Amino acid sequence: MTVQLPDNLDRNLCIALDAQDALAAFRDRFLSDGATIYLDGNSMGRLPKAAVPRLREMAEHEWGTILVRGWTESGWMESPWRVGDRVGELIGASPGEVLVADTTSVGLFRLMTSVLRARTQRRVIVTEWSNFPTDLYIASGVADLLGCEVRAVERAALRDALDGDTALLMLTEVDFRTGERHDMGALTEAAHTAGALVLWDLSHSAGAVEIRLNHHKVDLAVGCGYKYLNGGPGSPAYLYIATALQEELRNPIQGWLGHDNPFLFDSEYRRAPGIRGWMSGSPPVLAIGALAIGVDIQLEAGSHAVGEKAALLTEVFIRLAHARLDPLGFEVATPTSPERRGAQVSLRHGDGLAIVRAVADRGVIGDFRPPDMCRFGLAPLYTRFVDLWDAVERIANVVESGASRLPKYREEVAIP
Amino acid sequence: MTVQLPDNLDRNLCIALDAQDALAAFRDRFLSDGATIYLDGNSMGRLPKAAVPRLREMAEHEWGTILVRGWTESGWMESPWRVGDRVGELIGASPGEVLVADTTSVGLFRLMTSVLRARTQRRVIVTEWSNFPTDLYIASGVADLLGCEVRAVERAALRDALDGDTALLMLTEVDFRTGERHDMGALTEAAHTAGALVLWDLSHSAGAVEIRLNHHKVDLAVGCGYKYLNGGPGSPAYLYIATALQEELRNPIQGWLGHDNPFLFDSEYRRAPGIRGWMSGSPPVLAIGALAIGVDIQLEAGSHAVGEKAALLTEVFIRLAHARLDPLGFEVATPTSPERRGAQVSLRHGDGLAIVRAVADRGVIGDFRPPDMCRFGLAPLYTRFVDLWDAVERIANVVESGASRLPKYREEVAIP
Repeated sequence: MTVQLPDNLDRNLCIALDAQDALAAFRDRFLSDGATIYLDGNSMGRLPKAAVPRLREMAEHEWGTILVRGWTESGWMESPWRVGDRVGELIGASPGEVLVADTTSVGLFRLMTSVLRARTQRRVIVTEWSNFPTDLYIASGVADLLGCEVRAVERAALRDALDGDTALLMLTEVDFRTGERHDMGALTEAAHTAGALVLWDLSHSAGAVEIRLNHHKVDLAVGCGYKYLNGGPGSPAYLYIATALQEELRNPIQGWLGHDNPFLFDSEYRRAPGIRGWMSGSPPVLAIGALAIGVDIQLEAGSHAVGEKAALLTEVFIRLAHARLDPLGFEVATPTSPERRGAQVSLRHGDGLAIVRAVADRGVIGDFRPPDMCRFGLAPLYTRFVDLWDAVERIANVVESGASRLPKYREEVAIP
Repeated sequence: MTVQLPDNLDRNLCIALDAQDALAAFRDRFLSDGATIYLDGNSMGRLPKAAVPRLREMAEHEWGTILVRGWTESGWMESPWRVGDRVGELIGASPGEVLVADTTSVGLFRLMTSVLRARTQRRVIVTEWSNFPTDLYIASGVADLLGCEVRAVERAALRDALDGDTALLMLTEVDFRTGERHDMGALTEAAHTAGALVLWDLSHSAGAVEIRLNHHKVDLAVGCGYKYLNGGPGSPAYLYIATALQEELRNPIQGWLGHDNPFLFDSEYRRAPGIRGWMSGSPPVLAIGALAIGVDIQLEAGSHAVGEKAALLTEVFIRLAHARLDPLGFEVATPTSPERRGAQVSLRHGDGLAIVRAVADRGVIGDFRPPDMCRFGLAPLYTRFVDLWDAVERIANVVESGASRLPKYREEVAIP
């Protein structure tokens, strides 16, 4: 979708953009009450309608009737790499490079630990201090475990922080607070030039923007299933390991399903080849099945088209925010350049928490990140342009009307 | 249930035992085709009927309509310790000692790593070489990671293997091959006498026999949700950490949800108090909800009654096997004494794999573990005494008729 936006956007133009939107029909794949404007798909994505009968089929037919034979007859056993390959297609990986498993936290732990053990001459993980907390916490835990160092710097100082001690550059592609997107290609190349590996956390980018891991020669990646992939609350994560590294790196949590033949029940571990060697415990079958629905919808839409729509949605929202919200004390925190942002627009406001709560009461669901960030995720598969107009109007209204200054919106309760 | 069994059991007596069974009504809580005799609940338990509407409610209402607000409004965030407390009630733990999280493999890794890091003067994990493979593999991985030793010995040599170097005695309570049950109290005491901690894997005992962790002063435990707890394929695992150890031991995978206030998004990790500090990534909400159904049914039945029924079921099966199957070359591998076995009876036979397959074609689902073990799990909540009679008859029939010698049952394909 290439559209020249006029200087003065209005609601009718937003409706016209929806009419031209090649992805508009995907909105109907997701459950909606037709009223709520859900701009929090960057925290937890909507329910694909097809997930409901699929969950029922997996429960009643597979679990209830096929019973234990489902491990082979219903394909449960291979679901981590079968669905992993689909995720791989979405993020520019080759078959056999992605496994659906565990949580992002466990994936980060396993990959970071494996790199630090393989590169014993290099003892530093470079990251940015504003990375998502779990990435920082896990890195800190790995550093304590293995006697290494986490070098967490400002975004602008990342390249200078890479040196001959750096084992790994570990970053989240799209910043969870501001929506700012790193230049994955340039930073991967900089890490490689320094002799380091890279690990990208794609939690806030997969399913929102086009990702090309193989093209950028990315070594390692992780991501969660419950944001733009619409896999459901606590949906499993995935990990990506470039083929060239799969044998060198070693899974520290060597569980039985990573054995070359688990059903021999050998007492000695003999690692399965390739990505299967990164299996640990039993796969979360029902959750993987739900995630597969969300991933298939993304593949059908196509990541290039999804990325293009994200760029236009964010452009429209940013323009509307400048026009309507700047005068009310908001400041757009998300980069101006479309290729430097994800599918999210963040607005700074000193009253941000109360505003997000007041707007939620008026049917617009965003979220808040301390200290002052109102986040609005514009999930390309189910967000309309007219939703952006209506959302910005309601945000403006709660400030103008004084609603966001009501005591009920100012209680000290964290919003997830 | 205290029943004196007559010397000559027959089918009518089995029907009479069912009529006296105080737990008989629980069978109706699980989906059944009325024909299949499912004796593989020790591998993956049956579907509780109530799990189907619960999964639908969680998908359509919570995920689909409450959306991201489900983390607070639908109790998703606290589900790991809320359901953990119910599991704890089932296994004799106190509130705040059990967390539903990850897989058994990840739980084993976290607990073993934490012990070896806390007890730096002791470098040995004692276990038995016939422990479940994932327990052995994870221990071996932890030993390589931390420079420790796994001392895997014969069952009879366990006590002698405990010494001043032993950091941890790590055992599975009920053996997955034979159904033999350790004396948890005596072995825990022996480990403590040697100055070591104990870690029990309850995967094959929780929901099958009565477990009293606090009573036996057990330090640590793990278990899976998909066997006798009937949580579904790949259901999450749980971990137990005695209150006294929760601060001393340190979660090596320190993810953001183990932070004291995750929604502050601090860059520094500050561990949550108690069992919450053992959270790592986002909880698998739908799977925890399904597991809760299975656990609640167990609590309603009561673990003492469940254990008593398991003792009687296994007693009847062993007697029937001696009478009918010994002459056909079977050998009962499960201990004679009820308190020394779980809810499983294993029969050795040189043709075991083909027999298990042939019997499955005749509606009796058991499984096989190399080299020669036919396993029959007698899940107390849905197994009838008459099922045991019919199963033993069909096992005898496939051998007597020569059916198990048909080529189609002898292919080299592993049975999960």
